[in-house]
Amino acid sequence: MSLLLKFAISILLVFLSNTIEIESVEQIYSLETRYIEVPVDHFSALPSPKYFKLRYLINSKYHVRGGPVFVYTGNDGDISIFAQNTGFMYDIAPVFNALLVFIEHRYYGQSLPFGNSTFSSPDNMQYLTSTQALADFAFVIEHLKKSFFENVISYDTHPFVAFGGSYGGMLAAWLRMKYPYSVIGAISSSAPMFYFPGMTSCELFYDKVTQVFEKYGHDQCVKTIKLGWDVIINLSKTKLGMDFISTTWKLCGKLKNSEDTEMLLNWLGNIYVNIALTNYHYPTDFYTPLPAYPVKVFCDKLTTSYFNDTKGLIEHFSHALEIYTNYTGKRVCNNINSSIDDYTEFAWDYQQCTELVMPKCSTDADMFITKPWDFEKYSMNCFKKFGVKTFEPDWAVIAYGGKNLRHYSNIVFSNGMMDPYSCGGVTGNMSASIWAFNISDAPHHIDLRNSDVADNNYVFSARAFHIQAIKQWLNMV
Amino acid sequence: MSLLLKFAISILLVFLSNTIEIESVEQIYSLETRYIEVPVDHFSALPSPKYFKLRYLINSKYHVRGGPVFVYTGNDGDISIFAQNTGFMYDIAPVFNALLVFIEHRYYGQSLPFGNSTFSSPDNMQYLTSTQALADFAFVIEHLKKSFFENVISYDTHPFVAFGGSYGGMLAAWLRMKYPYSVIGAISSSAPMFYFPGMTSCELFYDKVTQVFEKYGHDQCVKTIKLGWDVIINLSKTKLGMDFISTTWKLCGKLKNSEDTEMLLNWLGNIYVNIALTNYHYPTDFYTPLPAYPVKVFCDKLTTSYFNDTKGLIEHFSHALEIYTNYTGKRVCNNINSSIDDYTEFAWDYQQCTELVMPKCSTDADMFITKPWDFEKYSMNCFKKFGVKTFEPDWAVIAYGGKNLRHYSNIVFSNGMMDPYSCGGVTGNMSASIWAFNISDAPHHIDLRNSDVADNNYVFSARAFHIQAIKQWLNMV
Repeated sequence: MSLLLKFAISILLVFLSNTIEIESVEQIYSLETRYIEVPVDHFSALPSPKYFKLRYLINSKYHVRGGPVFVYTGNDGDISIFAQNTGFMYDIAPVFNALLVFIEHRYYGQSLPFGNSTFSSPDNMQYLTSTQALADFAFVIEHLKKSFFENVISYDTHPFVAFGGSYGGMLAAWLRMKYPYSVIGAISSSAPMFYFPGMTSCELFYDKVTQVFEKYGHDQCVKTIKLGWDVIINLSKTKLGMDFISTTWKLCGKLKNSEDTEMLLNWLGNIYVNIALTNYHYPTDFYTPLPAYPVKVFCDKLTTSYFNDTKGLIEHFSHALEIYTNYTGKRVCNNINSSIDDYTEFAWDYQQCTELVMPKCSTDADMFITKPWDFEKYSMNCFKKFGVKTFEPDWAVIAYGGKNLRHYSNIVFSNGMMDPYSCGGVTGNMSASIWAFNISDAPHHIDLRNSDVADNNYVFSARAFHIQAIKQWLNMV
Repeated sequence: MSLLLKFAISILLVFLSNTIEIESVEQIYSLETRYIEVPVDHFSALPSPKYFKLRYLINSKYHVRGGPVFVYTGNDGDISIFAQNTGFMYDIAPVFNALLVFIEHRYYGQSLPFGNSTFSSPDNMQYLTSTQALADFAFVIEHLKKSFFENVISYDTHPFVAFGGSYGGMLAAWLRMKYPYSVIGAISSSAPMFYFPGMTSCELFYDKVTQVFEKYGHDQCVKTIKLGWDVIINLSKTKLGMDFISTTWKLCGKLKNSEDTEMLLNWLGNIYVNIALTNYHYPTDFYTPLPAYPVKVFCDKLTTSYFNDTKGLIEHFSHALEIYTNYTGKRVCNNINSSIDDYTEFAWDYQQCTELVMPKCSTDADMFITKPWDFEKYSMNCFKKFGVKTFEPDWAVIAYGGKNLRHYSNIVFSNGMMDPYSCGGVTGNMSASIWAFNISDAPHHIDLRNSDVADNNYVFSARAFHIQAIKQWLNMV
């Protein structure tokens, strides 16, 4: 879910390193940075209300008086990253004369409620919830309606439309659902709205990842990947084996014990997931620089000729993994424990531990190591890590209605049918104006990216659908 | 706004004193008392989540399997009181085979989050907000869907319909607005939805009270009431004058200083308001036992023959006031400071100081002492009393959309056109299924009372409208 962030960081680094005259992000994207004081807790009446500075960015390049406001509901990361990676909003802004606004999600980027102490205690972190973030968005939008459009009182003259991808897509939809007077509609891309306990079978996610590998890789790819787990586990039983993997896979630190092996297995699993999520039809820099159809390229490196050659298989995997870990050939070593000192990762893990529990499990049918879903264990691990409770499994049903969306209006839910998260997405219409648009063959939130010459007709039609929906909401058709 | 409570207490007392065999309230109304553990704070992820027991009452007398659930969203008071004073729900339950549920509002009745310490500090009181109360309701409803209807999974099989009057009417509407998957529709009676800063002119409330006196009292009544203020203020300048008023009006404590006089003026003003609110067309016990059309009876006691006789006027007022203060002739003295030691009053004042700020002012055009609305002063007084902040004036707009209700569905807003609070009510349709029903000639939430032989056609038609709306929501028509 912190996909966009990772993507953006890499984009940014590549960009900065390739540019002779370094322009600031604000200049390149015509973004003006603003801050607004918002309550730390929107839902209490404490005697000394605390406020903090929430950041938002504005692009008024395409705005013509009377045009709508397109607002991105920031998700798990620095908002400037999202502002640079939702090209669709810039692409269509001129068509609508739209103002673009990107609001940062509290606890990410520069919007830290308690400054340097933001992550230092459960007490300080307790306001990191989607309900508080939504109240922030409503607060900022109300402020903008009053301040930016000084002389315009009518809501309808300056309607706001929400955009968001992944968790940001959930927020865009929830904003429309909970504060329909704030935004006239929402484009919610690749949002796993139904990926909560009891709502979606836990095995579907890894099933879908496996399907992606089956569809885009060669016949034996999945079989080879499955074999890989056994080989790693076997090799890891001896120091010699661990050293061999560490060296062959260029790990930054050598494997030393079973905990390291566990971490390695997770790291490998995440790579498979990420390649599947970003299996775009053209070269991208989403998490990391990748060729077109990286799943195919990855699988092509894994032949079946090493089935009886353990070390040969590990070496082979090494070449395949470099497609993901080192496509540009510049990486010195692979750090399998990347979440250290990364507050974005920390905050997102916290959210996944509290509200946004998305049960994943693997079975014999998929290409991952079999692992059942255990809510109690999950919850206990979260408590160890953050000292917080995991919300009741019913939380998403009580707070956001679960799958019962028929009472709402004006939301487009788009999902790539080859996006693993689509298994928890809204893929059928829910009411007369809660529409699902399923994008054949597409990975994670491709429709929110800027247009590309390599875009296929499926992606093109998804974006056309969005544009048409927005026009309807704005009474332009 | 705490009308129902006062009404109910008096009803209860009268009832108990007149009954030889005392039955419990639960027996009389076939109510079963239940408790459920709900989070003190629905919106945080604190390490040790606190829970408290929220009370709700169930009447299953009219329930037939498959019938809907009518749920009363409790307002400012003990829920058993509301369960006894919303006769309309019992009257129509047999028509729908409905289960009746009355959920208590947190911080009232027995639903105290911190037991005896609930009101002891601003920290403990901070969770007394409408947003937390709504989350309670959604929580209980989700629980009921699972527990009460064990074998029934489908939401549509057991739809819930919300009912509420006054503040409870606001909550019923907000519940449908914020949690439309919880209730299929809401009957919101006499709810001053738009009575928030900047949304309704502050003078309209007292204007409406004055109109009620002008319409139902004789020609000179309003003039006499206005004269009364001057006479009291003049008399209060001397000890002799204060003693005279204290004795003639049977005050429990003698007036001693200007603060007492201020309190007396407020007490008198509240009586005018309350008589106007409960100016029913038949004898009632709403705040206190009253004759039919109490405004008329009150005014009839005030003739114009005392215009030049100050003391005579005060004596005359004494007789008129007894219509309200002592209609049964049993009261010994009048306590003009009734809010002491009353936690219901305390909690409600707190809510009016924080979220539910309803600006009232009086001008030369009405029958009250001229008093402008001063938000700063109001807020300061609240801080002195409770140590809390008054929410930003924009609060109702940000939290509930202000007057922008067009995105919602399935709510009936009913208002008596002679209810002073109707000035802040929804009196026009807002969308294809947000309907307003204006009840000619009616005072505060008469439509939620049980049917009475003296009911006129206006009230009858309001209730018929509610029934028809509910049938539509349930697909029964």
